[in-house]
Amino acid sequence: MGKKFTIGVDFGTQSGRAVLVEVGTGKEVATAVGEYPHGVMDEYLPDGVTPLDHDWALQHPQDYLDVLSETIPEVLKESGIACEDVIGIGIDFTACTLLPIDEKGVPLCLYDEYRSSPHAYVKLWKHHAAQEEANKLNEIAMERGEEFLDLYGGKISSEWLFPKIWQTLNEAPDIYEKAEKFIEAADWVVMQLTGQEKRNSCTAGYKAMWHKQKGYPGNDFFKALDPRLENVVDEKLSRNIYPIGTKAGEITQSAARLTGLKPGTAVAVGNIDAHVAMPAVGIVDEGKMLMIIGTSTCHMVLGREEKKVPGICGVVEDGIIPGYFGYEAGQCCVGDHFDWFIKNYVPGGYYREAEKKGIGIHDLLSEKAQKLAVGQSGLIALDWWNGNRSVLVDADLTGLIIGCTLLTKPEEIYRALIEATAYGTRMIIDTFEESGVPVKEIYAAGGIAHKNPFLMQIYSDVTNREIRISASTQAAALGSAMFGAVAAGKERGGYDSIVDAAREMARLKDVVYRPVQENVEVYNKLYSEYKILHDYFGRGTNDVMKRLKVIKRQASEKE
Amino acid sequence: MGKKFTIGVDFGTQSGRAVLVEVGTGKEVATAVGEYPHGVMDEYLPDGVTPLDHDWALQHPQDYLDVLSETIPEVLKESGIACEDVIGIGIDFTACTLLPIDEKGVPLCLYDEYRSSPHAYVKLWKHHAAQEEANKLNEIAMERGEEFLDLYGGKISSEWLFPKIWQTLNEAPDIYEKAEKFIEAADWVVMQLTGQEKRNSCTAGYKAMWHKQKGYPGNDFFKALDPRLENVVDEKLSRNIYPIGTKAGEITQSAARLTGLKPGTAVAVGNIDAHVAMPAVGIVDEGKMLMIIGTSTCHMVLGREEKKVPGICGVVEDGIIPGYFGYEAGQCCVGDHFDWFIKNYVPGGYYREAEKKGIGIHDLLSEKAQKLAVGQSGLIALDWWNGNRSVLVDADLTGLIIGCTLLTKPEEIYRALIEATAYGTRMIIDTFEESGVPVKEIYAAGGIAHKNPFLMQIYSDVTNREIRISASTQAAALGSAMFGAVAAGKERGGYDSIVDAAREMARLKDVVYRPVQENVEVYNKLYSEYKILHDYFGRGTNDVMKRLKVIKRQASEKE
Repeated sequence: MGKKFTIGVDFGTQSGRAVLVEVGTGKEVATAVGEYPHGVMDEYLPDGVTPLDHDWALQHPQDYLDVLSETIPEVLKESGIACEDVIGIGIDFTACTLLPIDEKGVPLCLYDEYRSSPHAYVKLWKHHAAQEEANKLNEIAMERGEEFLDLYGGKISSEWLFPKIWQTLNEAPDIYEKAEKFIEAADWVVMQLTGQEKRNSCTAGYKAMWHKQKGYPGNDFFKALDPRLENVVDEKLSRNIYPIGTKAGEITQSAARLTGLKPGTAVAVGNIDAHVAMPAVGIVDEGKMLMIIGTSTCHMVLGREEKKVPGICGVVEDGIIPGYFGYEAGQCCVGDHFDWFIKNYVPGGYYREAEKKGIGIHDLLSEKAQKLAVGQSGLIALDWWNGNRSVLVDADLTGLIIGCTLLTKPEEIYRALIEATAYGTRMIIDTFEESGVPVKEIYAAGGIAHKNPFLMQIYSDVTNREIRISASTQAAALGSAMFGAVAAGKERGGYDSIVDAAREMARLKDVVYRPVQENVEVYNKLYSEYKILHDYFGRGTNDVMKRLKVIKRQASEKE
Repeated sequence: MGKKFTIGVDFGTQSGRAVLVEVGTGKEVATAVGEYPHGVMDEYLPDGVTPLDHDWALQHPQDYLDVLSETIPEVLKESGIACEDVIGIGIDFTACTLLPIDEKGVPLCLYDEYRSSPHAYVKLWKHHAAQEEANKLNEIAMERGEEFLDLYGGKISSEWLFPKIWQTLNEAPDIYEKAEKFIEAADWVVMQLTGQEKRNSCTAGYKAMWHKQKGYPGNDFFKALDPRLENVVDEKLSRNIYPIGTKAGEITQSAARLTGLKPGTAVAVGNIDAHVAMPAVGIVDEGKMLMIIGTSTCHMVLGREEKKVPGICGVVEDGIIPGYFGYEAGQCCVGDHFDWFIKNYVPGGYYREAEKKGIGIHDLLSEKAQKLAVGQSGLIALDWWNGNRSVLVDADLTGLIIGCTLLTKPEEIYRALIEATAYGTRMIIDTFEESGVPVKEIYAAGGIAHKNPFLMQIYSDVTNREIRISASTQAAALGSAMFGAVAAGKERGGYDSIVDAAREMARLKDVVYRPVQENVEVYNKLYSEYKILHDYFGRGTNDVMKRLKVIKRQASEKE
């Protein structure tokens, strides 16, 4: 048997990316990226006249099909690999990214009569217009003492499935009525490839409150939200959920025409873009945390038991690797934080200096900040510029910086912002460990993990742990390709399990960031200060941040 | 009797300024500025080889004489006023600005043998190398329960007279020995004009712990500091202190040659550059506060009784206006604060926009910040970038900003910094009032008071008080000129008291800043948040700022 290949397609916020990977080595042979023609729709519908409120974010499902029809033929062509040698395909997606479809699986927005109905389109993960529904849901769940809350850090996000569906019911009951189903875009794309609806346990677990043992919350809960929602699961979703690593089906004739793949090629059930990266760095057992560091950071770790960890995003059995409980936590302001700073607060002279040196502004600031000893800036920041996701789960918290003097330079604040995100990560790790979920080693992927060794060393020093970096800059797509090979199975040249796939295909960089003990000691002191401030401002002793937000809202309304 | 004139000379940090003023109207007829040839010496002595430590700041006394010999003839010439029509002269100075002199009043640094001895020169107000002596002095005074501490907010500054003298004794006992006297530069200049030593109550009271009723601290206190200091007052100073408003003497023949003034012209006792501005804006009774707003802010108010006000810089009978207790408080980071921000944290685009509009960067930021409603930024800052002078008297406190989001713009932080200094002023006012020193109205002078109406309106809204602005941009020199007219006396065309002089010569701008009630209400809420943070970080609940400074110092030493 000659070399076999597998394809992973990673559907992001602005584009989709296909990677063709060699089975057995994980070698990435070819990559192709397709921008979504409609991008993120947050001002108008494609009709050009229907406006969207400022917290809306929609997508067009045709864009996903366009990505498939462009990028898969492209990687085949670029690599010169025959479609016969591609044994499987896996996809991953942003989530919860949700759309209403009819009985044939056709998105409602593709019908002429609905093309000017915002609720007929795909609600992207960062659609934030269902906040009211989320608040109500949390309130009612709390009152009723719903157990599932504890598995999601005590709070369901407005980004997740039920608030989004409920918003549709409230604002466009006709669309709700017309929809045969609401489905994650991940599952919808798998459906387009296989002709079958096979919902995956990852999105269901993390975004739709589904539990492997207990299923969805009870109908009485949904009835308490809104009598019309009583049977929402049976009427609009499905109770058939397939664990990550399952084969969803095979490429149909029409999917073969769309993609250039051979009919019968194995297709894996869908996955979330962060979670799917775990096996791509080789994490298939407990004690190892993966951080995907980009504009925000997603932390994932596996455990053998279901523990209640305060303030995490979710714990889902089979959510990441079959047979394990997958834990997720997050920080909502990381790369965004540094970008805010360089766009607004770095003087012209620094930009000129960077240009003269032929380096980026982030590199220049890192270079200057690196010259400082740990603690020398005298600064500590709380990394809450965009609220706090874990472990406080509070969007109303805001950023703080303390220790400024008349000599404080931009590179010192830049470093303090980086350190703040590292303290936030340590807080998450400590909370996991205190709750019985060990975190011994750290792995990192995502843009910043690759580009900023200065930051990675700080993370290693602050967390006092070794950090390894994904060799692939497209770990999500690699992970999806691995799941494609698992869907194909060993007989067809793939693998019988993701653990086997990871053993051969996962790839790490040679570099390992190791904590420097001298730095660890100073960071321990600084972190204990961070913790005092974290609890003082974050746990209700002084709710000044919330009160300032109220005053701010009132002031803005007056305008 | 024709029109009479009087001259005020204001000796600042970098230059001296003479103003020739019309008696009866306060009209400023001519102004001349003379830069000090030696400026502030903080790296080398004039010999070019003797280095100075980084917290040293010296001056050369010849520079003061040069100012007199340049600027006084210049204002006479420019105005065309005959020296016969100039009835008096007054001077004011930075303080404590101190020099050692011999028995003839000659500064030791003018002797060849001492020209390479740093301690032989004038120690400028901002000479900070006597911190150790100040610390020891405070410790011993505290142990002994010395009453005078309460009159200076509980702490004597390293900038003041006794720490500076003690440093000389410790580091250059020969200079201490050789010195016949140590004298404030203000009094030394008066001595050059009149041939007489007439020390003034303002510098003695605010900088040398002198008390009108009780005199200096007892010899036993000085002995407790250092046995060699036991008789420092009698050996190196003088117990003859003259109240502000006293005539020190008359222009001597040699002073007439130096200045072009007529021999016999009345000379007032010296004054401090901030305090002397009080009558220049017409403040000669209680309830009215003057703020001199520049790089830092000095607050002064008069009272009829001696009250202990926690954390003020000093209370001195006859210190500002004879017959009143003059209270002084301060903020050590005001204009410096805004300059720190524009130099380090304002992006190039803002500078280009300001240039295009043909306005300064402060004006641009004010213009943008002015468009925000009160509270709309969601930010609060603690104005401690340079420590806190009043009411916490703690140099180890640092700056804090809270409420940042990813949408926070530079003009919002700029506004928050301005507001922070306004809250700091309100804290001072509230402390005065709680201690029984009423503050009903506010007057302002200094660069920022003239240039930034946006800031002044915020101060009015935050303090809920009307604010009036000095008409003169050289209020100190005007005040000195008024004291010159008082020294001359009514018979010679001047006044019998500073109250009379103020009635005719004080000048205010037409503009009055009045609190806008809608803003006052929101600022009351914000101020109560400021207060909670102020006490939490400033009064020992969480000493994180001090701990960060310790870590910072250790980190810097490691370097």
